[in-house]
Amino acid sequence: MTDLSLTGARALDSQDVLRTYRERFVLPKDVVYLDGNSLGALPKATMPRLVEVTEQQWGRDLIGSWNRHDWINSPINVGRKIARLIGAAPDEVVVTDTTSVNLFRLVVAALELQSQRSDVLSESGNFPTDLYICEGATRAFGRGARLRIVSRDRVADSIDSSTALLLLTHVHYKTSETYRMAEITEAAHARGALVLWDLSHSAGAMPVDLNGVKADFAVGCGYKYLNGGPGAPSFLYVAKRHHARAFNPISGWHGHARPFDFTDEYVPAPGIRGYLAGTPSIIALAALEVGVDLLLEAGIERINVKTRALADYFVALVESSCADLGVELASPHRSDERGSHISLSHAHGFEIMQALIAQSVIGDFRAPDIMRFGFTPLYTRFEDLWIAVDVLRQVLLDERWREPRFAVRSTVT
Amino acid sequence: MTDLSLTGARALDSQDVLRTYRERFVLPKDVVYLDGNSLGALPKATMPRLVEVTEQQWGRDLIGSWNRHDWINSPINVGRKIARLIGAAPDEVVVTDTTSVNLFRLVVAALELQSQRSDVLSESGNFPTDLYICEGATRAFGRGARLRIVSRDRVADSIDSSTALLLLTHVHYKTSETYRMAEITEAAHARGALVLWDLSHSAGAMPVDLNGVKADFAVGCGYKYLNGGPGAPSFLYVAKRHHARAFNPISGWHGHARPFDFTDEYVPAPGIRGYLAGTPSIIALAALEVGVDLLLEAGIERINVKTRALADYFVALVESSCADLGVELASPHRSDERGSHISLSHAHGFEIMQALIAQSVIGDFRAPDIMRFGFTPLYTRFEDLWIAVDVLRQVLLDERWREPRFAVRSTVT
Repeated sequence: MTDLSLTGARALDSQDVLRTYRERFVLPKDVVYLDGNSLGALPKATMPRLVEVTEQQWGRDLIGSWNRHDWINSPINVGRKIARLIGAAPDEVVVTDTTSVNLFRLVVAALELQSQRSDVLSESGNFPTDLYICEGATRAFGRGARLRIVSRDRVADSIDSSTALLLLTHVHYKTSETYRMAEITEAAHARGALVLWDLSHSAGAMPVDLNGVKADFAVGCGYKYLNGGPGAPSFLYVAKRHHARAFNPISGWHGHARPFDFTDEYVPAPGIRGYLAGTPSIIALAALEVGVDLLLEAGIERINVKTRALADYFVALVESSCADLGVELASPHRSDERGSHISLSHAHGFEIMQALIAQSVIGDFRAPDIMRFGFTPLYTRFEDLWIAVDVLRQVLLDERWREPRFAVRSTVT
Repeated sequence: MTDLSLTGARALDSQDVLRTYRERFVLPKDVVYLDGNSLGALPKATMPRLVEVTEQQWGRDLIGSWNRHDWINSPINVGRKIARLIGAAPDEVVVTDTTSVNLFRLVVAALELQSQRSDVLSESGNFPTDLYICEGATRAFGRGARLRIVSRDRVADSIDSSTALLLLTHVHYKTSETYRMAEITEAAHARGALVLWDLSHSAGAMPVDLNGVKADFAVGCGYKYLNGGPGAPSFLYVAKRHHARAFNPISGWHGHARPFDFTDEYVPAPGIRGYLAGTPSIIALAALEVGVDLLLEAGIERINVKTRALADYFVALVESSCADLGVELASPHRSDERGSHISLSHAHGFEIMQALIAQSVIGDFRAPDIMRFGFTPLYTRFEDLWIAVDVLRQVLLDERWREPRFAVRSTVT
């Protein structure tokens, strides 16, 4: 029986093995930040690292820094670290470009590998950029390639002999529901399809075992749970068995076997380096590395334990104190079926989230009626959740929400 | 008659209308930095700006910064500034991704626009990533698309009814030779081809008039003359007349008309915003903006006058003091036929550049025999060039270079 009082919350915090990590982040006073699933908080070590890279390296050593400070290998070196969070071998992950660009290059690579098959299969309501990129990639590729979108409950049964690639997001950005990666990857392989997993809402929040589930490709986001800063570079994973065959359509010079020979012909570098393209932002990579280092230090298994405890506790609080106030759990009830955020639905979700933010409880809203609350075990306390639900309860008691839903709503951005 | 003494160099510096800009950069003491064409120096205003964006915005305002600090519009806002340097309308330029990724998306867009034509025509010895990207883009596009490479002197005559796109670099990265943009763009248009200009070695160093020459597309680099930092984001230009027709194959959510509606279907934002894709690095964009602001403040016309004066002075020094020492001018002699660096060839160019660098004169080497010296009017002094050529003369006098060329050379990176 969980003690749902404020004292109980504080007791949970005092027993938390990760409690000291909160001190490693810059967090505004008196704010309950539950949006690390959208933009992770700033590690305190990031600013000194940016000073070092900018003033000491760029400013002082200038062009020589590519060798002296090993800038040239930072996409590989940070990729190697991220590999440990997602169950990949060290030479299967590289940091480069954005999630959108990495989705594009892997979708095209898969279409070429599967030249007898036309379809990229995905889920309606998948994170939109995944679908948008598939639209553009299939159009650019031509040759009958097309994006096929089916509802979530029909995904598994829709994999057929036309399916070149199955593209799914492990943790759903709205509902937090997870796919059983092993099961669905196996089903896809059994029907001859490749699988690309978008780990944007899982990497850094929960363990992923790409090698264990025999995933073909994966991409993920650097600015959510990896705490790499706004627009941090993305990572991509290509299973070693595909390295020699899966081509990188965006074949820029950093992916060349000998970039400084400056020859006219492209010869891909062997292994994961062959998936690089243009010159990466060294400053952005440095910021991302600081975030990743913190996660490795804390340990993804310990993070996962706390993620589940936080989410369970939040659900218990909402069920206990907000029952009959019009909110419903829009995430799975079972902690092993969801990621690191909890979504609540309410017909007035947009206005209620605005009211929460006005009282310094920061979550976010996704149309039409979803309020998201993200839990980031390195800096979210049980006490934060207690405060959040206490404020939520006060807001929900407002009589406005008992009226019919507003006809016109301002646009959320 | 130029006074080629050190006193003469100092006199030129004292008359230089841009002389105060050197104080706006962090430059290591006793180093002559002539590689701003590869990595521009660090503006003093960059670090405070990074502190502001990181600590004040990301750290304190967190996710709210996308609106409060207008992060969402920074690719457009910085693009608008760069537009003033390259003769484009404010809504024709956007900052996003890397030069390689932008080349890719515009090559594919051009191939689709020109569906009756198969060839991307370029120059052998063009900057390699331009050719590598075309290789990957034509392969991804299929439908008979191919990259056709001809020697520089045959480019103009090779434009024919198969040419979908002519891709050229305005200033050659090795020789510094420029193309006459107006003339060759007109010739391409007359034969039904579109033209994509790579401005990586011109933007920020000399005026470019994209609208004046009726260019269709352009890309350029943020980390050379724009002083945006290592791996700074790139910019792309699409002439307004193509906005409604030229599709962005990498169609990510930031290019969507209503990205926060989270709908399944991609609807491109009107105008240049439709060429965005994934979430951009806000930290990298902030650093780039500082570099661009400095150039706008100094004025591209004044920069151009000094660029030419520096290059002419350097050539005069080399011709006067290094005659008969085995170096040859590998750049055009006429200042209106070249960009902002001067290349010298020497059979022992690699070793000579290493010797220069060991004496703190930083240029770079490009195989097989090219030594490059880049001039960046905001921080390069005439005195720097005098010192550089004085050191060069001492190095060239070394008896080693009179022996046959070394058979084996270590790889330069």
